[in-house]
Amino acid sequence: MLRPIISLTTDFGLRDPYVAEMKAVILRICTEARIVDISHEIKKYDVGMGAFALACAVPYFPEGTVHVAVVDPGVGSDRQPIIIQTPKGYYVGPDNGVLALAARNDGGPESIHKIANPKLILPQVSRTFHRREIFAPVAAHLANGTPSAEFGPRISKINNPAFARAAKKGGALVGEVIYTDDFGNIITNLNPKDIQIARTQPTINIKIKKAQLSLKLCKTYTEVPPHKPLALIGSHNFLEISLNQDNAAKTYKTKTGDKITIQLPQKTGKAKRARKKSIEFV
Amino acid sequence: MLRPIISLTTDFGLRDPYVAEMKAVILRICTEARIVDISHEIKKYDVGMGAFALACAVPYFPEGTVHVAVVDPGVGSDRQPIIIQTPKGYYVGPDNGVLALAARNDGGPESIHKIANPKLILPQVSRTFHRREIFAPVAAHLANGTPSAEFGPRISKINNPAFARAAKKGGALVGEVIYTDDFGNIITNLNPKDIQIARTQPTINIKIKKAQLSLKLCKTYTEVPPHKPLALIGSHNFLEISLNQDNAAKTYKTKTGDKITIQLPQKTGKAKRARKKSIEFV
Amino acid sequence: MLRPIISLTTDFGLRDPYVAEMKAVILRICTEARIVDISHEIKKYDVGMGAFALACAVPYFPEGTVHVAVVDPGVGSDRQPIIIQTPKGYYVGPDNGVLALAARNDGGPESIHKIANPKLILPQVSRTFHRREIFAPVAAHLANGTPSAEFGPRISKINNPAFARAAKKGGALVGEVIYTDDFGNIITNLNPKDIQIARTQPTINIKIKKAQLSLKLCKTYTEVPPHKPLALIGSHNFLEISLNQDNAAKTYKTKTGDKITIQLPQKTGKAKRARKKSIEFV
Repeated sequence: MLRPIISLTTDFGLRDPYVAEMKAVILRICTEARIVDISHEIKKYDVGMGAFALACAVPYFPEGTVHVAVVDPGVGSDRQPIIIQTPKGYYVGPDNGVLALAARNDGGPESIHKIANPKLILPQVSRTFHRREIFAPVAAHLANGTPSAEFGPRISKINNPAFARAAKKGGALVGEVIYTDDFGNIITNLNPKDIQIARTQPTINIKIKKAQLSLKLCKTYTEVPPHKPLALIGSHNFLEISLNQDNAAKTYKTKTGDKITIQLPQKTGKAKRARKKSIEFV
Repeated sequence: MLRPIISLTTDFGLRDPYVAEMKAVILRICTEARIVDISHEIKKYDVGMGAFALACAVPYFPEGTVHVAVVDPGVGSDRQPIIIQTPKGYYVGPDNGVLALAARNDGGPESIHKIANPKLILPQVSRTFHRREIFAPVAAHLANGTPSAEFGPRISKINNPAFARAAKKGGALVGEVIYTDDFGNIITNLNPKDIQIARTQPTINIKIKKAQLSLKLCKTYTEVPPHKPLALIGSHNFLEISLNQDNAAKTYKTKTGDKITIQLPQKTGKAKRARKKSIEFV
Repeated sequence: MLRPIISLTTDFGLRDPYVAEMKAVILRICTEARIVDISHEIKKYDVGMGAFALACAVPYFPEGTVHVAVVDPGVGSDRQPIIIQTPKGYYVGPDNGVLALAARNDGGPESIHKIANPKLILPQVSRTFHRREIFAPVAAHLANGTPSAEFGPRISKINNPAFARAAKKGGALVGEVIYTDDFGNIITNLNPKDIQIARTQPTINIKIKKAQLSLKLCKTYTEVPPHKPLALIGSHNFLEISLNQDNAAKTYKTKTGDKITIQLPQKTGKAKRARKKSIEFV
């Protein structure tokens, strides 16, 4: 019998006993669980950063893993605790987008359930401690094999903040900056599937802040001369804009949440003109 | 067969290999142990903070868990390494109070043993590395089912520093501030049992530093208007003094170790006067 | 059946999901692995500090443990990924010395293999992510019992930077400072075996920076008066130069990489003069 894996991504930090409380609750219910910490040092309340860390790590986990992510500025408000099931795994957390990016890359939601069954959560649910009283026991029960449907009613929609989706606007694909790594590489929320339609040309036309760039889609940073810009699908499986041996985020003055616009290949001269106009936003 | 759980609470930090050395020793002796870190970022030598973190997490662990806590300014001195057994689990560490608060909340000591059996600890015991040579192997042997009595003679008393107990003085209950959280909430060492006797009135009369407060015992912070004080049993299961949306520790200028005095309900007018006087300390 | 242990030592930090990605890859291949973090807070690219942390922790692990260490300033360069097998365990990482110090203390290499078999690593090996695509799967396959020889050709030499070896120069033994702990103790890369030849005299003659010291080899710091220097084999099993209740690193102005020279016992007056000259370096 395989022992189930549960991953944890939170903004709780490592000084306080909160993470241990979640693990203790999990091990009470699923004694065979193997728990893997993805990160507990997500910036406090930074849902996008939590979503990104989770999305980076998910592809390496075996099928059937239960991923718990708790970055939850709205705890105590009306946002729902949910379970998303994808072809490869389970996602447990608040419905604020922290699960959405990873679930999207992991095959997309097959089903979404609201967590509402009082028998499968801890008896005393305070408004402030969903992590321990809802998310931890639900993850453990899922790891034990309890089907998603037993936790609550099926719902059809989840919150999908801008960082968790790509949008088509006129003739352009619009994403956003989701993370800036230590080297100043600008990591976007666009995945290889998103940019496939933009890859029919030798270069990709990208607008970011005031810069209009025509970039080669490279496999390594050194395919362009030092200090020159390039596009690349990073090891995190998202589109990244970088400068070879230089700091792209500083050069283009970007920060998390900034829009990135990729001009899609155009079919006719007419369409071209029409579309060109429609993407002229800042 | 259940696999035993061992929790670890220390002030070793995560940079150095000390925690790994403890885990390696544990896994050599108890190959099936599941080890859960409560915190390794307790402030160096802050026994009260270690005691508090342990006491917070303990209620979530299953019965039979072995808790190891090593925050030990007196390592190499005469304080004893001990095992406390409670109705729910085992506590292993130095006899300086780091175990006492959690054990008190966990049903109280059923037995206390001094660790003295050289066969159950590592052969080379330096004066500085009890964590690795005594506490880790003892925890692993306990997890393997070795009875407490085999580790050394039973003793009847442990050190019980002020942070680990509540005292009655005249007509008052005296505790102390054990922790101040990131929001400035003042967390005391008084548990629900301690304050039960003070709860016969609609409000609790609390003296802390120069402030004499008459507080409502609330379930949530929002039961009082913004910036007003309240008392509440926090998720950590200790009495907490807070301001709704404000910083109580700053307002009342409290720090760890400050005394908190709760006036108990009085029976007669005479007793009242006598008691009032007896609690007039600073 | 014993469940195999894999230890991890890296400079990845705990904020990013890199460590979790390694663990996920390991658990996919070796579902029963128990993973113990030695440290992920090695100073970025500080190979010597990584080597030291690993060497400290290794003696406490059971036989057969697979140790992975990834501190790798040369990732993407020509340095090889290797496996070192010692009488007690396996070492997986880049051939830059990060494994060498621990392997030397652990009985020395019995065999060394280059990692080259594409079937035992992840399909997509980028030049930048050896940790995940090479080291993690190789560790997991070793833990599953795959013999070292299946990973690639046997090689006879590894890189052995100065911090991983002791050298004899004229009549002296030359090592170096490998770490300075929080108390200012100067920890060298010399192990008890190295200094055995220097221990035939009541004191050890040590030259470090401009100081020429004649030190007693002590068992505890308090064997000399306060502020006086001593030599001692620390709990890490390396020779350490300390001041009782004082900061040796500040007093002698040492830093990582500084040479330490121990004068060996001399046989004749003639040899004495000749040797004395040969160790007069700075």
